[in-house]
Amino acid sequence: MSYYDQEDTIVALSTPPGLSGIAVVRFSGMDAYNIAIKGLELKELKLRYAHFTKVIDPEDRALIDEVVVTYFKAPYSYTGEDIIEISCHGGYLAAPAILELYYRLGARPALPGEFTRRAFINGKMDLLQAEAVADLIHAVSDSGKKIATQTLSGKLSEKVHDLRSQLTDIASILELELDFIEQEITTLDKSALKEKLRSANDHIKDLYTSYSSGKILREGALVPIVGRPNAGKSSLLNALLDEERAIISHIPGTTRDTIEESFVHNGIVFKLVDTAGLRDTVDPIELIGTQRTKMTLEQADIALLMVDLTQQTDLEFEKEFLKSYPDLPKIIVYNKIDLNNKVPDLKAEHSLSVSALKRKGLAELSDLMEKLVRDNYHVDGNSLAITKERHKNALANCLEALERAQSALNDNLSNEFIALDIREAINALDDISGQTTSEDVLNNIFDSFCIGK
Amino acid sequence: MSYYDQEDTIVALSTPPGLSGIAVVRFSGMDAYNIAIKGLELKELKLRYAHFTKVIDPEDRALIDEVVVTYFKAPYSYTGEDIIEISCHGGYLAAPAILELYYRLGARPALPGEFTRRAFINGKMDLLQAEAVADLIHAVSDSGKKIATQTLSGKLSEKVHDLRSQLTDIASILELELDFIEQEITTLDKSALKEKLRSANDHIKDLYTSYSSGKILREGALVPIVGRPNAGKSSLLNALLDEERAIISHIPGTTRDTIEESFVHNGIVFKLVDTAGLRDTVDPIELIGTQRTKMTLEQADIALLMVDLTQQTDLEFEKEFLKSYPDLPKIIVYNKIDLNNKVPDLKAEHSLSVSALKRKGLAELSDLMEKLVRDNYHVDGNSLAITKERHKNALANCLEALERAQSALNDNLSNEFIALDIREAINALDDISGQTTSEDVLNNIFDSFCIGK
Repeated sequence: MSYYDQEDTIVALSTPPGLSGIAVVRFSGMDAYNIAIKGLELKELKLRYAHFTKVIDPEDRALIDEVVVTYFKAPYSYTGEDIIEISCHGGYLAAPAILELYYRLGARPALPGEFTRRAFINGKMDLLQAEAVADLIHAVSDSGKKIATQTLSGKLSEKVHDLRSQLTDIASILELELDFIEQEITTLDKSALKEKLRSANDHIKDLYTSYSSGKILREGALVPIVGRPNAGKSSLLNALLDEERAIISHIPGTTRDTIEESFVHNGIVFKLVDTAGLRDTVDPIELIGTQRTKMTLEQADIALLMVDLTQQTDLEFEKEFLKSYPDLPKIIVYNKIDLNNKVPDLKAEHSLSVSALKRKGLAELSDLMEKLVRDNYHVDGNSLAITKERHKNALANCLEALERAQSALNDNLSNEFIALDIREAINALDDISGQTTSEDVLNNIFDSFCIGK
Repeated sequence: MSYYDQEDTIVALSTPPGLSGIAVVRFSGMDAYNIAIKGLELKELKLRYAHFTKVIDPEDRALIDEVVVTYFKAPYSYTGEDIIEISCHGGYLAAPAILELYYRLGARPALPGEFTRRAFINGKMDLLQAEAVADLIHAVSDSGKKIATQTLSGKLSEKVHDLRSQLTDIASILELELDFIEQEITTLDKSALKEKLRSANDHIKDLYTSYSSGKILREGALVPIVGRPNAGKSSLLNALLDEERAIISHIPGTTRDTIEESFVHNGIVFKLVDTAGLRDTVDPIELIGTQRTKMTLEQADIALLMVDLTQQTDLEFEKEFLKSYPDLPKIIVYNKIDLNNKVPDLKAEHSLSVSALKRKGLAELSDLMEKLVRDNYHVDGNSLAITKERHKNALANCLEALERAQSALNDNLSNEFIALDIREAINALDDISGQTTSEDVLNNIFDSFCIGK
């Protein structure tokens, strides 16, 4: 570890700063016990026992706080190292005074995510679980919390481990066969091998495609609102936010966009984008052609097309838009239903009438948006899913290697080459669980953690 | 208890909401164990042992979080009741999901300060200590933290208890004498009794006068800046805040005043008040006569008088001010020393030259302010002190009763009357420790706590 010294004993406030009953200061490292005890009135700590005691500055014997201290001995702790937890009074001074004392007594401030990084390095959890810790803490919707909790519990890791076993099975058969070839015996049942490969490939593909739901559960569904100028796009956006009330300010994994606002409906986060803000043009046909709108629509999970019922013209723009992005589920939202209830037939699968101004039809719209997301992306709290670009890319690499292996098998290439492809596929899975992940990727992952975790 | 039901098991988040590694959910009450266990995977908890387990909704078996749970059995807990602490993941959803589950399973949300109120009611701490819990959490300066920690540790309670013993001693002698009188024997040594009374009175008076330092340690020193218009009062205020950097936004026990700003210098909080904001008049002589300025100066701990060296006139206002409030320590601050270094002789005990604009002499000014506060109010981290109006009023009642007892003794009044006065003095001390404190006062004290403490 060049990044920081693994031998250090680290300490940090593990609860948020603020006015509260309790704050928790946490140590981890091989000297955690010895360092912590220097500032405690008690001179011995039993294992995992909550001791009432005092933090006292050994230099001037000043009482710093009355606390509860618990000692977790390696390897039976969160980090796999010795951990001491000091539960002190909340507020702005007690915990900082304890931290300041222990910096003097030999502990160093923990870096962001350093506790979890140590847990990962010491084999207490794999990288999927470590990422899930941060996701759980940053979750803003029930669905985001659920998928993080499930991943943290190890279900996704088991799944990846199971897929890996299928591949190592195949690799073993091929490598065993290589030994036999030297002895000029062949026992390889090619069709059985093909079937095994096909089956492994299918399971990995399933996990790969779970990304669309996993991403929605973790980050929310991206929903651009498209329409002519004055169709009521921003009115609809505000009306939905107002109706749902549960506005949230920050979704993990996304950069904050001033024209993006989010709300939670039945556990799913919807990130609304008013495309009117995407550029200055007022020509709607031109609008869908612009780079930013294109990018938004390409990433979108569903789209809302607003049509102002009081301003029906040729509907050229609307027809054009409905034809584009054929895989993107779209809802036509007829606005100003209170002023004109004559609805044109745009032959869309999903449509709905609302009045953004009079707050009519909004609950129905949220329900329809939720239905489309659940139906199209198999969003289901109980399913296992990958949630990150990193996982998706690794699985793409895995699938590519398997495809090469399958062609090689079909082309009757040497087992040696096929085995190499399978090993590459295995390595790609190991990247997900963190067994072969580079230092840079690890830094990237743990730097996004908060301090104290 | 008409205020809330003491039989209920209460639950609350005891750490601040926010992004962090850990959050702590705390239960207290006779059913805490039974209710908590309903939502845990583990079905038995050892005493004060940190158990790794899961919170699981018993209805649908959904995993809510992986947690560490500790059980403190009554009476060996903070509240004196059974307490369960669940340490879960931080963030905005894990703890609220756990709370929501347990509201369903039979716990009710704790009221502000309800844990500490129960601790007080169950005799785990007296009222002085309970108040110190809130003071410690809300402390914004080292001195404020120190005095709260000391009071929390029970040192002030011991002192009050000791004073009470002195008084009960005297009361016993008098009441015993009353019995003897019936038997027509007298054994009373009047001069010894007088001496005992005088000594108790002196000790109580000492504690009473500790309020000036206790208040400064807890709330900070109130420092009005007085001076003619354009003497540079607000420039000095801003320069001092800028110089000290450690600006703090809220001091406990004070109502927020828009023209008051605070900074910490060597552990003492200074609350600066620009009297220019006190009223609209530009006539400085009139200014010191206004009601608001009067009130501020009456409550002030020290005052700064600013004199603009480039605008020396008759100095009538300055001389007038130096004569008023004779007990208030004052510092003359000669401003714009960079433009004119001819300093008039105003015959003040403390004076100093600064340039608010050029940031000169500010550190010296802070030091002098600190010295004046420490010298005049016996501010010393190790001394015991009362910190609240409530304590001061109770001690004033106590001293009044003792004065009556002393006069009665001098006037050779019946021992019965003297004993009654002593009992009244004892009751006043009991008010401080909370033994005879009314429900309303208790509500007042605990309502100002945060939830979860």
